[in-house]
Amino acid sequence: MRTAYQEQLHSLNTILGEMCDLAGSAMERGTRSLLQADLAIAEEVISENDRMNDLATRAEEQAFGLLALQAPVAGDLRGIVSALQIVSDADRMGALALHVAKVARRRHPAKTLPEEVAGYFAEMGRLAVHLARNAREALDSQDPQAAIRLEEDDDAMDDLHRHLFTVLMDREWEHGVASAIDITLLGRYYERFADHAVMIGRRVVFQATGKTLADLDV
Amino acid sequence: MRTAYQEQLHSLNTILGEMCDLAGSAMERGTRSLLQADLAIAEEVISENDRMNDLATRAEEQAFGLLALQAPVAGDLRGIVSALQIVSDADRMGALALHVAKVARRRHPAKTLPEEVAGYFAEMGRLAVHLARNAREALDSQDPQAAIRLEEDDDAMDDLHRHLFTVLMDREWEHGVASAIDITLLGRYYERFADHAVMIGRRVVFQATGKTLADLDV
Repeated sequence: MRTAYQEQLHSLNTILGEMCDLAGSAMERGTRSLLQADLAIAEEVISENDRMNDLATRAEEQAFGLLALQAPVAGDLRGIVSALQIVSDADRMGALALHVAKVARRRHPAKTLPEEVAGYFAEMGRLAVHLARNAREALDSQDPQAAIRLEEDDDAMDDLHRHLFTVLMDREWEHGVASAIDITLLGRYYERFADHAVMIGRRVVFQATGKTLADLDV
Repeated sequence: MRTAYQEQLHSLNTILGEMCDLAGSAMERGTRSLLQADLAIAEEVISENDRMNDLATRAEEQAFGLLALQAPVAGDLRGIVSALQIVSDADRMGALALHVAKVARRRHPAKTLPEEVAGYFAEMGRLAVHLARNAREALDSQDPQAAIRLEEDDDAMDDLHRHLFTVLMDREWEHGVASAIDITLLGRYYERFADHAVMIGRRVVFQATGKTLADLDV
């Protein structure tokens, strides 16, 4: 039978999972609003960000409650402190998806992305959603292997991000500086989104084992 | 007389202060390396980043120790959890200063910044150093007023950042897209540096009072 403590910890992890799902869904729709210059979807992502803040507040309150009332030690303590850090990461992922939607809204009805780079963002969006899903799975399974898959997806994101810059810096680039600025910032948002998902994976490994990936030598 | 607990908490806060100082110093020199295309200073900032990671690790260990051994409640608990979040913010400030130095190194011996925007970065650098110093002071004094000054400096940073974009997007911009990309990313590094300093201020207020700035209505 589960203790009240385990129930509360489980409930905290459920909120963290919801936060990852919300971040992934926001990034999926943020990318769609960007690729299709769809104002309605952009507005939806922007207005939903309050929900992320509510979840973050609830998660922090639960973590505080667990720390204060249960005075946990060792593994339990590690779990709760990691949870607090995961809240920050997932919250930040949501903020980055919000930034993407805001760029789409700012440029509407124009498309933000010239044809040459649209494919990069479609792929970065797909990877970002995948990373959010894997972060959630890592949380649920507490499996170090899931954390490793996150690192691999992040490498793919970094590659795309680098290639994107070579397209921008090509002499043939004819869409001007304003467009290059948008694309530079957008690229950075996707790259940072991936970084935070990776951090969630690493914190899960620490949560589950008390070790870093390097310690585990996996 | 101080308890062992207070000694340990004091020692933790001392490390956090050192982290803010180090971030400010790295950003001061990072900015100098950027403005003067000075490779030696850039290398110095880059190699010193290990020191920041060491401090972060030490701070996290101390915070964990306090949580595990002392089972603190209420105000003490708040202090330690806030400290853990401040570690992340200060660490990130150091990483952003590192990014600035890396851009300077990548472009050396060329100057990264055309004349028209150098003044913006000199000023953003000055503000960033100021913000790091005020974050440290807020930590030491635990004074909500210090946190408010951080918000004001951040507003000034945001203004500079916006103006910088108007310069980049001017039709007269003649330094090409590659240069605009560098400047866009650099601007973002300074802006995020300021955001993290502001977050430290907010966490100090919460640490000291259990309230947010909005709650305090200051």
